[in-house]
Amino acid sequence: MGARGQDDGRGDVLVCDPTTETRRLIEATLASAGYRVSEAEGADACLQLISDVPPEAFVLNVSGTQFDPLGLALRVRDLAPDLPVVVLYGPDDDVLVRSLLQAGASDFMSLPVAEPLLLHLVERNVMLRSHLRAMGEKEADLEKRNRTLDDNLRVLERDQQAGFRMQQSLMPQTPYTVGGVTFSHYLRPSLILSGDFIDYFELKDGRLLFFIADVSGHGASSAFVTVLLKSLSRRLLREFDSLGFTGTASMLSWFNQELLACELEQHSTMFLAMFDESASTLQYSNAAHFPATILSSAEATDYLEIGGLPLGLYKGASYEEKVVTLPEVCSLVLFSDGVFEIMSEQTLRAKEEALLETVRCGCRDIDGLIAQLGLAEVVDAPDDIALFTVAKAG
Amino acid sequence: MGARGQDDGRGDVLVCDPTTETRRLIEATLASAGYRVSEAEGADACLQLISDVPPEAFVLNVSGTQFDPLGLALRVRDLAPDLPVVVLYGPDDDVLVRSLLQAGASDFMSLPVAEPLLLHLVERNVMLRSHLRAMGEKEADLEKRNRTLDDNLRVLERDQQAGFRMQQSLMPQTPYTVGGVTFSHYLRPSLILSGDFIDYFELKDGRLLFFIADVSGHGASSAFVTVLLKSLSRRLLREFDSLGFTGTASMLSWFNQELLACELEQHSTMFLAMFDESASTLQYSNAAHFPATILSSAEATDYLEIGGLPLGLYKGASYEEKVVTLPEVCSLVLFSDGVFEIMSEQTLRAKEEALLETVRCGCRDIDGLIAQLGLAEVVDAPDDIALFTVAKAG
Repeated sequence: MGARGQDDGRGDVLVCDPTTETRRLIEATLASAGYRVSEAEGADACLQLISDVPPEAFVLNVSGTQFDPLGLALRVRDLAPDLPVVVLYGPDDDVLVRSLLQAGASDFMSLPVAEPLLLHLVERNVMLRSHLRAMGEKEADLEKRNRTLDDNLRVLERDQQAGFRMQQSLMPQTPYTVGGVTFSHYLRPSLILSGDFIDYFELKDGRLLFFIADVSGHGASSAFVTVLLKSLSRRLLREFDSLGFTGTASMLSWFNQELLACELEQHSTMFLAMFDESASTLQYSNAAHFPATILSSAEATDYLEIGGLPLGLYKGASYEEKVVTLPEVCSLVLFSDGVFEIMSEQTLRAKEEALLETVRCGCRDIDGLIAQLGLAEVVDAPDDIALFTVAKAG
Repeated sequence: MGARGQDDGRGDVLVCDPTTETRRLIEATLASAGYRVSEAEGADACLQLISDVPPEAFVLNVSGTQFDPLGLALRVRDLAPDLPVVVLYGPDDDVLVRSLLQAGASDFMSLPVAEPLLLHLVERNVMLRSHLRAMGEKEADLEKRNRTLDDNLRVLERDQQAGFRMQQSLMPQTPYTVGGVTFSHYLRPSLILSGDFIDYFELKDGRLLFFIADVSGHGASSAFVTVLLKSLSRRLLREFDSLGFTGTASMLSWFNQELLACELEQHSTMFLAMFDESASTLQYSNAAHFPATILSSAEATDYLEIGGLPLGLYKGASYEEKVVTLPEVCSLVLFSDGVFEIMSEQTLRAKEEALLETVRCGCRDIDGLIAQLGLAEVVDAPDDIALFTVAKAG
């Protein structure tokens, strides 16, 4: 409908004027400005034309009509509520003008006809209508596009959330207590799916194995690899005896070899440790995981520094293995490096120091760490964030 | 800004009228309608007020002014291009009215002042301005929201596309020819990530192993399981000798047991077959995969019917195993059941028959099947669709 006016010049204007002279003048004025003018003498003819070919404006000379102009205006309003009505009136039409105002006429011009003014009034109404129409259409388009985008977004979000629920179902219970040791973890994905992964379980002989891993990148493709890590972790537990491990270093070598066999684009870090309660010793190895694990007790709080190559990149990579005797009461606090992205310190060194200080000051549980790091307030974390604590009660 | 008018009643109107009598009348009319009226006598005072407290409308009586009304109108237009100017004019102001029209005055009323008409003109301008402003703000809001939605959608799409690329990298090369056998496949995910999976490879002894799998559901969470299937498939190849398989049935049992060990919510179908070129025999087993595989040669085209439980649901599920001698030249055509969702036939039976007929009529290659099934034109496929062909050249 918006295009019709353009096709036929500047649009249709209906003129109803009983006086031949002014009617001719009005018609000539509008026609020369490019409007297609139709005319009607009586009220019924007007209404018929309005309903047949809805015009863009209606010019009504109320001076000296044979019919009731107010009655016509009211019927026009019923028929075409948005049709602008430009009223031409004489010096004695004050009362009528007032009624026509209430009947919704939009513009009034006193006779005699001043052509430029008449043209201005018609023009303004026609342009305003088309402007409002265009704005309305644009708004409707935008709203429609919004709905489509919203729908598409919801579909993908739901899909990823289903994926995240699956990821969650692969994570171990938190908190999980075995003997005097309690494991707790918290994952905060950058998008919805996470490339950080944590696992912990008790081996048949009672030793406790746990690791934190951070797959390169984040989001869906990294999350895929965490599913593989879980399946490897399960195999490690199931086939522990037959896999012939000599310690944590050989376990990382096995993870490395299995990931390489998958020929993925991603690689992964992993800090893996094994706690032997009977000897109170912790054996650990590291595949490029950063930051290092923090060991904290009443006596001291320090990073367990140990290097190593990431998993899934280098064939035959071998790993170091260290052993530390744990104090009776102590905590291990592990992070993924996404935590650095939300810290305000300027340098990596300062951030590491701040993490250590946080733990040293007694913040060794998940809730405390979330609060201390302001994780609840973080929006749009650029990388996945994982917190993992292992508390030994003594 | 839109709220200011409401706070101060219906908004500010500036009146400039040299004639005390009409000025009082105008002010009284507007004030009684709720407008806050300010007045200025000279042109400079007008401009000052307009720039100090931009009004919603400006009423200018040009009859008998001491200054040049056109000059004022032009300066007002420069200062506040959107300010509606309502001009009151006398019987001798025709030429001036024409100039003021060109200077952008919006409304004209011949003197003497008709209060209802004046009020109508001011009111309409004020309401129109606020309506246009509201529409503009709404449009800006919608556009902003659109951009946000668009950005969020892109982030998730990019993430899933990265995931899909990873999935693709796990799929075998297509087409892939080994000996006289050519494997080809095509995946059409419902969203971006796919729950359908296909793999094929040559065992050390030269036999060819291939399977099609359809993980329950679709999208990210199903795609996760395909990554596991790939890692299992790789293990099957690597550890083939040590896994002690007796045939395709024992392979499905192994897949079943490994998936169960992962304790996933998903399960998967799988049709798995092993081709022995030396004996021209195909051994195959099925874990609830549907539709059945089609074997097609010059002599006959039929489904290889064989049942079996899905993988990852039942502990100790065992599978049937069948052997068929393949004609010298033949094709195997495999689908995932997503293909049924885009077929127009009413019943499943009719769809199965139509698939068989398509293959029987010679459509046994991926491109032909894509064209025949109209896959290129499908939008919003409700389920993932996989096509897989194994062509034996003889």
